[in-house]
Amino acid sequence: MRKVYVAGVFSTPFGKLGDASIKSLAIAAGIGAMADAKVSSEAVEHLYFGNFAAGMLQGQKMLAAVVASGLRLTLGPATAVEGACASGGIAFHLAALAVATGQCDIALAVGAEVMTGSTTEQVTNVLASAMDQASGEPLTGLTFAGFFSLLARRHMAVYGTTMDHFAYVAKKNRDNAQYNPRAQFFGHPVTWEKIQQSRLIAEPLRLYDCCPISDGASAAIIVSENVAKALGGTMIEVLASTQAAGPAALQEMDSLTSLSAVRHAAQAAYETAHVGPEDIDIAEVHDCFSAAEVIAMEDLGFCGPGEGGPYIASGSTLWDGERPVNLSGGLLSKGHPVGATGLAQVYEVVQQLRGTADRPARRARIGLTHNVGGTGGAVVINILART
Amino acid sequence: MRKVYVAGVFSTPFGKLGDASIKSLAIAAGIGAMADAKVSSEAVEHLYFGNFAAGMLQGQKMLAAVVASGLRLTLGPATAVEGACASGGIAFHLAALAVATGQCDIALAVGAEVMTGSTTEQVTNVLASAMDQASGEPLTGLTFAGFFSLLARRHMAVYGTTMDHFAYVAKKNRDNAQYNPRAQFFGHPVTWEKIQQSRLIAEPLRLYDCCPISDGASAAIIVSENVAKALGGTMIEVLASTQAAGPAALQEMDSLTSLSAVRHAAQAAYETAHVGPEDIDIAEVHDCFSAAEVIAMEDLGFCGPGEGGPYIASGSTLWDGERPVNLSGGLLSKGHPVGATGLAQVYEVVQQLRGTADRPARRARIGLTHNVGGTGGAVVINILART
Repeated sequence: MRKVYVAGVFSTPFGKLGDASIKSLAIAAGIGAMADAKVSSEAVEHLYFGNFAAGMLQGQKMLAAVVASGLRLTLGPATAVEGACASGGIAFHLAALAVATGQCDIALAVGAEVMTGSTTEQVTNVLASAMDQASGEPLTGLTFAGFFSLLARRHMAVYGTTMDHFAYVAKKNRDNAQYNPRAQFFGHPVTWEKIQQSRLIAEPLRLYDCCPISDGASAAIIVSENVAKALGGTMIEVLASTQAAGPAALQEMDSLTSLSAVRHAAQAAYETAHVGPEDIDIAEVHDCFSAAEVIAMEDLGFCGPGEGGPYIASGSTLWDGERPVNLSGGLLSKGHPVGATGLAQVYEVVQQLRGTADRPARRARIGLTHNVGGTGGAVVINILART
Repeated sequence: MRKVYVAGVFSTPFGKLGDASIKSLAIAAGIGAMADAKVSSEAVEHLYFGNFAAGMLQGQKMLAAVVASGLRLTLGPATAVEGACASGGIAFHLAALAVATGQCDIALAVGAEVMTGSTTEQVTNVLASAMDQASGEPLTGLTFAGFFSLLARRHMAVYGTTMDHFAYVAKKNRDNAQYNPRAQFFGHPVTWEKIQQSRLIAEPLRLYDCCPISDGASAAIIVSENVAKALGGTMIEVLASTQAAGPAALQEMDSLTSLSAVRHAAQAAYETAHVGPEDIDIAEVHDCFSAAEVIAMEDLGFCGPGEGGPYIASGSTLWDGERPVNLSGGLLSKGHPVGATGLAQVYEVVQQLRGTADRPARRARIGLTHNVGGTGGAVVINILART
């Protein structure tokens, strides 16, 4: 495998973006990433596109070709991938592999989603389609809020995790979003009291423990070492990009306090990158619900099993802690346009490693992204480093 | 790139399959391909899954994880791809690349679609989502029958192609399907007169010029050279697997009598395989409409531009012709469960190259598959050989 670098990134603002179409958002993100990398559309050889729900919500499929046409990339492969909330991460993963395996020298990964034009009921139903309909949601009646509330409840029962631990995640990420002008809740801070008093969505998860419904698009240009050197600028290397599959229904899981695909993908990523959890300076993790960030800390090895709550409460993952997590605001406060999220994580980590983030971390040489689809059915972990 | 082999294939029957779910069909195809290859589920390292419409028609996304779980493949990547009617071809392409680039030694590609439980209006609307909704179908009002009728009409005007040429494709493929018990119209031969007198769907295309709505699933096991040798049996090598992108709307096309992505993918495939069109013994091409097979003959270089009609009328592509095309019955008579089609083409070519087809071609050492998505927005060409 060849060395792979991220030469350019872009993200639209996340939130309620009115009439912006998924095509226009995706093209904006693609153009932005190409401009950031100083790469022309003629030079882009492969396109990988991540999206979850445009077929169901906008009646638009075939988006890889639509976006490739819009960006004037019409010769090489343009491939659309779907892994629910990990769709953007999978697009990045395949783009990185295409360069790593010598299929091409310059690949573009774009992820996009438009959700706010639909009703909450429509979106909830569409999201439920990320569970196995033959043995999952229709049998259990679970929404994803319900699914993560079960994991949260189990974590509380087994490890003594508290609702305050979840609230701490919500507060930290909302605070971080106040420094990210692209975040959906930028300019909307909340107090600790307001979080603790907010209504229960699926006990024990309250309103601020749940990510919002969002529109947005993000993109990255991935290049070979020679191209990266020729383009100049800060070299951001992809030390590892790994993908793993897991169960698509609650009752197939081997644990309710851990996601097997995260453990497998993280272990593979650490081995590939020749680093351990202790080497990760910053991380963007998949906090679709606050309890998911607690579990992520453990599955990623940032702390031991069951220690996620106290680990977060210790302040270790704050901006000025030893390992800041979700400096972007995370899914909870940056927003979660499903297909874009995996690439938005890459956007934030790259800006942090470059030192060009809106609020740079004190130390950020190695960063990790953690993108989870469905009930852990698809997981992508990336480890990036400034080299 | 390493050498890559197809070690196993399977296809369910195509047609109206009643209450069979997309999950059950996909699992059946996957198990079938593993059994054909004599490979256990534990040995399969990657899964690539092609589907177009399960989100819109069955409310089921995240199918790569659902199928991986059902097949008990839960550790490696399971990736769902979508390129409209080329979804199955893209799944095969990525599986072949995963092995060729050394990411794994054994990959499974599965494609599946369930369509007959929906109304024709629903299916027509869903298929239209494979055109660019921002500049295509909503503006032009074109269904895909309308789109291909425009290409057919243009081909007639420019080259003198006739409706009889299209009818000849329909008759040949229907005749071929009478030897393929998996075909949707097996046991349903039609006469030349019935084809010519059938009702117009979108002039100049008549009923028998249009593929049916179908359910079905197909799969292939792709392996490295060492694994192929260890498994034994006839060695079927993937000489080339190429993918190209093209326009997703009529008005973006550079020609109405040719698909640019087919020309690009075919040229790349011939160069990679070190063969020319003259070396192709058999082909399975994407005859969603009979006119599409005429155009395919030209874009693949089997004849010159504009010569597709006379070429087919000459009998060259009949079972006993010099280069049989669509011995399976093609999309027109085998059926077209969208996400499965690209892999069903591989199934037929592999059976022909092995000499185990229901009606073997006289000479079949090198075979080609041609899988087209949407308006030519995604194209996959494979060249396979018995070695």
